[in-house]
Amino acid sequence: MRATVLHSPGDIRLDTVPDAVVQDDTDAVVRVVAACVCGSDLWPYRGANGDQPEPRRIGHEFVGVVEQVGSAVADVAVGEFVIAPFLYSDNTCAVCRKGVQTSCVNGGGYDGAQAELVRVPFADGTLVRVPQPVDDALVPHLLTLSDVFPTGHHAAVSARVGPGSTVAVVGDGAVGLSAVLAAKRLGAETVVAMSRHEPRQELARRFGADHVVATRGKEGAAEVKEILGGIGADSVLECVGTKESMKQAFQSLRPGGTVGYVGVPHGVELNVPVMFGTNSGLAGGVAPVRHYLDELLPDVVSGAITPGDVFDLQLGLDDVAEAYRAMDERRAVKVLLRP
Amino acid sequence: MRATVLHSPGDIRLDTVPDAVVQDDTDAVVRVVAACVCGSDLWPYRGANGDQPEPRRIGHEFVGVVEQVGSAVADVAVGEFVIAPFLYSDNTCAVCRKGVQTSCVNGGGYDGAQAELVRVPFADGTLVRVPQPVDDALVPHLLTLSDVFPTGHHAAVSARVGPGSTVAVVGDGAVGLSAVLAAKRLGAETVVAMSRHEPRQELARRFGADHVVATRGKEGAAEVKEILGGIGADSVLECVGTKESMKQAFQSLRPGGTVGYVGVPHGVELNVPVMFGTNSGLAGGVAPVRHYLDELLPDVVSGAITPGDVFDLQLGLDDVAEAYRAMDERRAVKVLLRP
Repeated sequence: MRATVLHSPGDIRLDTVPDAVVQDDTDAVVRVVAACVCGSDLWPYRGANGDQPEPRRIGHEFVGVVEQVGSAVADVAVGEFVIAPFLYSDNTCAVCRKGVQTSCVNGGGYDGAQAELVRVPFADGTLVRVPQPVDDALVPHLLTLSDVFPTGHHAAVSARVGPGSTVAVVGDGAVGLSAVLAAKRLGAETVVAMSRHEPRQELARRFGADHVVATRGKEGAAEVKEILGGIGADSVLECVGTKESMKQAFQSLRPGGTVGYVGVPHGVELNVPVMFGTNSGLAGGVAPVRHYLDELLPDVVSGAITPGDVFDLQLGLDDVAEAYRAMDERRAVKVLLRP
Repeated sequence: MRATVLHSPGDIRLDTVPDAVVQDDTDAVVRVVAACVCGSDLWPYRGANGDQPEPRRIGHEFVGVVEQVGSAVADVAVGEFVIAPFLYSDNTCAVCRKGVQTSCVNGGGYDGAQAELVRVPFADGTLVRVPQPVDDALVPHLLTLSDVFPTGHHAAVSARVGPGSTVAVVGDGAVGLSAVLAAKRLGAETVVAMSRHEPRQELARRFGADHVVATRGKEGAAEVKEILGGIGADSVLECVGTKESMKQAFQSLRPGGTVGYVGVPHGVELNVPVMFGTNSGLAGGVAPVRHYLDELLPDVVSGAITPGDVFDLQLGLDDVAEAYRAMDERRAVKVLLRP
C-alpha cells in the first residue's frame, strides 16, 4: 500500500509499504477515505523535536471504511464508515472510564494514517461508527472529528467555557479556528479571535468570533482586556504551544479565569507566583477525542456545525509533500488528503 | 492599642501603636474578638521572603465586633459581630462580580489583625455579619471563616471536588486539615490525607479522611494511587507550597485530574510537557474568602461542620510570640489569640 514517510526533516514522501493487516483479534483495518495533516505533524517535519534517526511513518487523523476485523471485534463491522480518534484506546480501563482515553493503559498511536490502510488496535474501544449512508460532502466535517475539532472543543471544555462565558482564542491555525466554533457551540457570549491573517480572520468570524484582534503579545492582550470589560477573558484557549503564545494567553485572562491549552508545549514557562496571586488556572492537554465523539458527532451529522470549513486545500495522497509545504508555509490552514 | 509587630525574622512582639480609626467614609473599625496565626505568617517570621527592611504589623485573620463605621457604611452597624475575610474588597468592581474578591481593583490587606482594633476599608464589601447572639463557643469556628477554612474549600473547589470524587490532600497543617473537611462537605467519596503526625492524622480522620498515608514523596504518591483504583486521585489538594509538595501532588493525580493549590508557592516548578500529556490541570491561588462566605457561614452557624477544631492552642494576645513559636516548631496546628 502507499503510505506517507518522513525520511528526514523536510523530506516527506509517499512510499510503498506492506499492507496494514489484522495482527491481534481486537484489531480492525480501515481503508482511508480521507486523512489530513496536523499542526503537530509540522514539528517533526521542521526538525523541531530533535534528531530523527531513521525514516518513520506519519499522520494520525483519518476517517474511512472498515476493511477487515479481528475475531474479537464486536462493535464495528466490515463496510461501516468510521471515525478514528487520533490515538487508540481500549475504552474499558480505569483511566478510559474517567474519560481520558488519551492516557488509556493499553493505548497508543497508529503506524501512520496518511496512507491507504491503517491498522487500528482495540477497534471496539477506538472507532466510532457514522450512521449510513455517508454523503461525500460530509466527509471533511467528519474528518475533523478525528482530531482538530475535538481538540478545539477540549481547549474550550478545559477552560470551562459555558453559557455566558467571555473567551479569547490564541492561535489562528485549524485548532484555534475550531476552538472558536467550539466555544460558540458551548454557549460563549463573546469570543475574541486573535489573528493577523485576513482569510483566517474571515473564517473565525464565520465560526462565530465576535471580535478579531490582529495585534500580538502584550499589546494584543491589552486589546482583549479592553474588549472584555477591562478585565480580560473568563477563558483563554491556547492553541499554539509556544512560550510567547502561552504568555499572551495568561496576559489576556481575567483574575480567576482558566487557560485551556491544546497546543503541544514547546519551551513553555509558567509564572507560578503570578498564577497563584491571580487565581489563573491551567487545564488541557492531549484531547481525549473518543470521550467527546458521542456529544459532537450528532451536531456534525445534522449539519448544525460545519467544522470541515477549516480545510482550504484538498489534494490527492500523491501530493502529500505539497500538503506539508502548503501548511508549513501557511499557504493553507489545513489540507485534506484523498488516497 | 496593642498590636503584633514583626521586628525582624523570629522577633515577634506585642507593641503599643496608635488606635485604628476610620479614615475613609467607607471604613469600619472592628474590635477583635479573636485572631490567629496563619501558616503564611510563618514565611516572613522565618525570613523566607527575603530581607525585611523595617518592623511591620502582621496578621490577617480575625473576627470581632464593629466599633465604629464611616458615614458611607450601610450594611454593617456598630455592635454587630462580623467575619473579616483576610483581604478587603469593594465587592462591586468587575473582578469582584466574577467572585474573585482577592483581585478586587480597590482591594488590599489590613494593617495587621493580630491586634485589638483593625481598620477595615470598604466595610460593606468586606465584612460579613453573623446572626446574633453569637455563642462564645462558636467563635473559633467563625474565626476559621476569615481564611483557613475557605482556603481549604478553595483548594477543593479549584480541584473540582464534587459528589463521588476521589481526593488526596497534601499537607497536614490547618489548611490541609480544612481541605479534608471541605472535600467531604462537597461530597467527596474517598479522601486520602497525607500526614506523618499522629494528632494531625487523628484530626484528619475526624474531619472525614477515609485513609491516611504517612509516607512522603514518590512512594507516598504510589500509596495514594494504590488506594485510589491504581490510577490516582481525581483531585489533589496541595496545601503546602513547596517544590516537593507540588511534585508529590502531581504524582498522586490521575490522568485528567486537577491539582487545587492554596499553599503560597515557594520555588515551585511545573513539568508542563508531562502535565500536557496527562491532562493534569492546575487551579487555585489566594482564596476569595468573601465569595464563599454566603455558602459556608450557615453550615458553621448550624454546627453542621466544626472547622474550628483545627485550633489546638488558645493564648492571650500578650503571648503572641509563643503562638508563633508553637506553630513554627509544629507544637501546635493553629493558635487562636484572644486580645
